[in-house]
Amino acid sequence: MSGDTNPTNDGGSVEQQENMPRLIDISREYVRTYMKQYDSSHDYSHIERVLSLAKHIEASETRRANGSRLYDSDIVILASLLHDVGDRKYLKPGQDGTRAVFDFLSDNGADDQTAAKVQEIINHVSYSSEIKNPSAVTRAITRHAELAVVQDADRLDALGAVGIGRCFAFSASRINHGALENAIDHFADKLVHLKDMMKTDTGREMAVERTRRIQIFREWWVEESTAKEDE
Amino acid sequence: MSGDTNPTNDGGSVEQQENMPRLIDISREYVRTYMKQYDSSHDYSHIERVLSLAKHIEASETRRANGSRLYDSDIVILASLLHDVGDRKYLKPGQDGTRAVFDFLSDNGADDQTAAKVQEIINHVSYSSEIKNPSAVTRAITRHAELAVVQDADRLDALGAVGIGRCFAFSASRINHGALENAIDHFADKLVHLKDMMKTDTGREMAVERTRRIQIFREWWVEESTAKEDE
Repeated sequence: MSGDTNPTNDGGSVEQQENMPRLIDISREYVRTYMKQYDSSHDYSHIERVLSLAKHIEASETRRANGSRLYDSDIVILASLLHDVGDRKYLKPGQDGTRAVFDFLSDNGADDQTAAKVQEIINHVSYSSEIKNPSAVTRAITRHAELAVVQDADRLDALGAVGIGRCFAFSASRINHGALENAIDHFADKLVHLKDMMKTDTGREMAVERTRRIQIFREWWVEESTAKEDE
Repeated sequence: MSGDTNPTNDGGSVEQQENMPRLIDISREYVRTYMKQYDSSHDYSHIERVLSLAKHIEASETRRANGSRLYDSDIVILASLLHDVGDRKYLKPGQDGTRAVFDFLSDNGADDQTAAKVQEIINHVSYSSEIKNPSAVTRAITRHAELAVVQDADRLDALGAVGIGRCFAFSASRINHGALENAIDHFADKLVHLKDMMKTDTGREMAVERTRRIQIFREWWVEESTAKEDE
């Protein structure tokens, strides 16, 4: 797999197109099992929500473009399903997650172009890699428009009530389970900035409301945690 | 330790009164270490919040009674600090937590009456024991008015934003970490009923707002988790 792949939107070969429903089914079943090794912040329900959000963003952006075909729907689905496979947060020291999806898709009959495209999208989804190298993400979106959709969907699931629940669950499931305050700090450090990093108009609009929810929650938290001793 | 102890509010012996600041200090240090064995839903921050809420409720109820002495402040403090020692949720099969506080206090110079009073309060704090035998709690409050204060304080910390965070953390820290949805179900099954079980007017008023926060959070959750696929 080379770093650069062919430009997007050619839809792949006829054989690949015909193979897509099967590839999506296999990926779905694979991920349903794969996610059981993670904690409840990254379980199959997270995948289902991201897939649903990605489909919503794709449909909404397509409507705004008066029906122009902006994305390959199958790529959106595959990348949504597989986006946490090989996730760096859960790798053991020395493990490399950056080829796991390419290998899985190739082993299940995807052509190299499709496998490389999905893998490259997934390699650019994460927040921490974008912070380290934002221009790499910009370039990847130019090559793969679907990255914007999947990335926004994944980040929306880190916001709002669901994001709050996931944040506490992730923190508590770490080996030295963090104090609740660590999760709250995470809201201020990372989550409230996500809305300014959204790549689609639909995602940005949804992020505004979900960010507001996190901010309200934080205000509640501060008010409840402040000492009540009144003498 | 007998099930029934002497009526409350006599303040204990002069020696016991003089020993109280030391007993409270020792209890605080003991609990600070003790809570490290539990997960982040029941850590020393929880104890600090409950203590702070209990002091607030005691002061507020005393004001409403025009300054009449309703509670023994030292007992409120000791029971708040020690209320999760021997907690049934965290015991191993066969362990008995119902004497741990009595033994700890006795070993540290408390007289039998004080040790028994604090232990009996703590044995009646829990929600599940109240559901099983509500009249036992009513009778215990008649004997120990401080139980109403500590119980309300503990339940307030299960509500609001803090309660939401603790609920997700508790669920995620279980060996077979529950899905996030389990935590949400817990809101409906238990938490929203707590406000109708509050024993003080101050606690009940605070519970109304914190219950509203849980209900808002649930509405956000449902809205965010509902499939967004719009074609």
